[in-house]
Formats: sequence, structure tokens, C-alpha cells
Amino acid sequence: MLLGRVTGEVVATHKSSSHEGLKLLVVQTLELDGTERPGAPLIAVDSVGAGAGDRVLVTLDGWGAMTAVDRFPAPIDCAVLGVVDEVKVEGGDS
Amino acid sequence: MLLGRVTGEVVATHKSSSHEGLKLLVVQTLELDGTERPGAPLIAVDSVGAGAGDRVLVTLDGWGAMTAVDRFPAPIDCAVLGVVDEVKVEGGDS
Amino acid sequence: MLLGRVTGEVVATHKSSSHEGLKLLVVQTLELDGTERPGAPLIAVDSVGAGAGDRVLVTLDGWGAMTAVDRFPAPIDCAVLGVVDEVKVEGGDS
Amino acid sequence: MLLGRVTGEVVATHKSSSHEGLKLLVVQTLELDGTERPGAPLIAVDSVGAGAGDRVLVTLDGWGAMTAVDRFPAPIDCAVLGVVDEVKVEGGDS
Amino acid sequence: MLLGRVTGEVVATHKSSSHEGLKLLVVQTLELDGTERPGAPLIAVDSVGAGAGDRVLVTLDGWGAMTAVDRFPAPIDCAVLGVVDEVKVEGGDS
Repeated sequence: MLLGRVTGEVVATHKSSSHEGLKLLVVQTLELDGTERPGAPLIAVDSVGAGAGDRVLVTLDGWGAMTAVDRFPAPIDCAVLGVVDEVKVEGGDS
Repeated sequence: MLLGRVTGEVVATHKSSSHEGLKLLVVQTLELDGTERPGAPLIAVDSVGAGAGDRVLVTLDGWGAMTAVDRFPAPIDCAVLGVVDEVKVEGGDS
Repeated sequence: MLLGRVTGEVVATHKSSSHEGLKLLVVQTLELDGTERPGAPLIAVDSVGAGAGDRVLVTLDGWGAMTAVDRFPAPIDCAVLGVVDEVKVEGGDS
Repeated sequence: MLLGRVTGEVVATHKSSSHEGLKLLVVQTLELDGTERPGAPLIAVDSVGAGAGDRVLVTLDGWGAMTAVDRFPAPIDCAVLGVVDEVKVEGGDS
Repeated sequence: MLLGRVTGEVVATHKSSSHEGLKLLVVQTLELDGTERPGAPLIAVDSVGAGAGDRVLVTLDGWGAMTAVDRFPAPIDCAVLGVVDEVKVEGGDS
């Protein structure tokens, strides 16, 4: 899994039926200190009620993401799995 | 999933039978503000009737992509899943 | 899928039995205009009779690649799926 | 698999039920000489009792990671599989 | 698949039972001319009796790698599949 921050939401009226009713979050991956990493913004389905500003755990694995929202099989390859309370590392937690 | 823009189409007469009848879209991944990202152009099967210029949701997961066009198993690893209406982010939607 | 060009072939006498009888193509991924991209050369099994110089469609998905050559399960993760006739994009086809 | 070093732990109270009771390790991938590589910090489930400072084997494959902790299917895509005693390479072990 | 060179071996006494009895090779990916590419050193299970210095075919696909060593399911995501005799490319074989 990767650390990310929810920075927004995608609205798509015309989409695969597998995505109906799911919130599509925009997630930017993070360094341990909370700064945003370069790289494509990820569009993840939400499985835990996360929202803008939350620091989250995100999976990029297809099976994992489908399982997280209990839609299988489906064209879902990225999901938010948890809200991070704390990252404990040597040299200072964040 | 990633955000992308459909920029063209690939014509391949001689190909795997699994791809017969599917539209092969050229998709360039996007930043949140709609600018194109560097990286290889993706060749995605279309599952929603998308066309050139559309901002789209795209999956790079094999199972997901096969599921999107209901051809399983097949050598399909990338599919357009939705047309994006709006990306709502702090600091300005796009 | 990605666009690639077949630039050669790999000879490996001592290999997994799953690869017996398959042609192992060297494929370099391409930009839309046909120039070669940086990145590792891919070693792909051939499923369409492609040869050196051909512009091709290539998959990097395991299931997809195994399916393309109808050997399942097997340690095959990359396959050439089609020969590209034309890439139609705004600003000039190639 | 990749070589990594455990540098910390993630605390997430609100998360997928599949992750309950699992330790979420922060892992930074390594060069052969033990220096940290650039790239996103990985969040891996622990399957071998690894802790901060350990040099470890890590998998980024979904099926592999689920199997390592015997939770299947689950949105788990990264796991620590072993503690590395030694890396034997020409020019000096580490 | 990718081209690689075996540069060493990893010793891990404390590891997943799925890895017992398997040789864990350190593999660096290669350019066509045999020079080493940048990128993380891969830790691959051996399926063909490869050793230090060998130029090899390597897979990074989970299913493929498990299949190569006939351990399924297992947290194995990278395997050496063959020893390369020759890479035939325009402009000079290697």
C-alpha cells in the first residue's frame, strides 16, 4: 500500500455500471513527512468514508481494490483502505 | 484509475481475435489541471463510447480491463471506463 | 496495451518448458510518432507472427499474455498482440 | 521481490477489516549496498515479525502479499516476507 | 519478460515457508548491449539453475513467477526463467 492524501473528487456521469454509487476520490501519494510526491494523481474508490484532506492508505492492486468495495469482478484497480492516524518513524513521527 | 485524454485511435488489421470489434483508443494520462503527463501513450479498449478529446477514467489492471468489455480471459490490459464531467479539487475545479 | 517496435529476437536454449516453441521478440516501446521511448527492452512472446521492424501492440499483463498464446498457467508476462497499421491522431497520423 | 529496510510503522484506527490485527510497516527500498533508494515509501503488512531497522524481503504482488498473511481475498498488496541475513555479491557482501 | 544479469544471492534464514529451498538470486536488469540499467535490484527465485554472471530472462509477474517454481499460491513475484544464449538485433548481436 501507499500513503496518500485525498485532494478532491471526480464526477463522471457516464461510466461503467460497476462504479455506480461509489465515490471516486482524487489521491496524491505522499512522502513520510506528508509532502506530496510527484506522479500521476490516482483516482480511487472509497471504502472507508474518507474525504478531502484525509491522509489515507491506498492500494493499486486490482483484486485488492475490488475486494475492498466488494464488487468482483469489476474494472476497479485503486481503493482507499484506511485513514492514517500516525506514521511512526525514527527521527520524528508525523 | 488514472485520468486521461483520448487523443486518437489505433488501426490494427492483424491482431488477436480477442480484440475484434473493439475500438482501440490512444490515451495520454493527465494532471488534475488537464495538462498531459509524460509517459508512454496508452492503448485502451473503449467500454463507454468515448472519442477523441474526451477526458476519461482509465484502468491499467488486466482483470479490470477484461471485465469492462466483458471478454474474459483475453489479452486486454487497459480500458476506458468513464467520461469525466468534472474534477473537484481545492483551489479550483477543472 | 503499449505501442512498440520489434527490434530483434532472444535465443535461450535453457529455459522454462512453458516457453518451448515460442518466438521471444525484443520490443522497444514507442511514442506516437514512432520514436523509441527510453525504458527497459521488453522480451515478449509472439502471438501474431510479428517480426523485426514491425510496429506492434504489446501487453505487459500476465494473464493477458498467457491467454494470447494459450498457455495457462505459465511464466509468460508480455506478448505481442497485433501489428499496427496506423495510429490516427490529431495533428497527423503515423 | 525487492530489498527494503523497515523504517517505521503506520497507525490507522479506521481501516478495512481485512487489515485488523496486522502490523503495517513502513519500508524503504534499498540498493545492494544498503543505501535507501528514491521512490514512495511502501506500507507493507508484516508476515515474519520484522521490526524497525531490519533489512527485509518485500513483495509488491497482490496475490503474493495476501498469501503471505493468509487472508484471501483482501485488499493487501505489499508484504514483508523475510529478514535478510546477507547479500552476497561480487565486489563485497553486505 | 526482461533481460537481467545475476549478480549475487540473498541469504535469509527467517522467511516465509514458501521460499524454503529456493535460491534467491540478485538480478540487475540489462540493456540490449548488456550494460546494467538503473533501477532497484530484483530478488528472483531461480527456476533454471542460473548462477552469478549469467544473462537471464526474468519475469516480474506474480502468477508467472509462482508457476515457474510450481509453488502456488505463494508470495513469489519474480523468477529467473531462462539463460540467454544470444540477443539478435539489428546493428549487432550480443
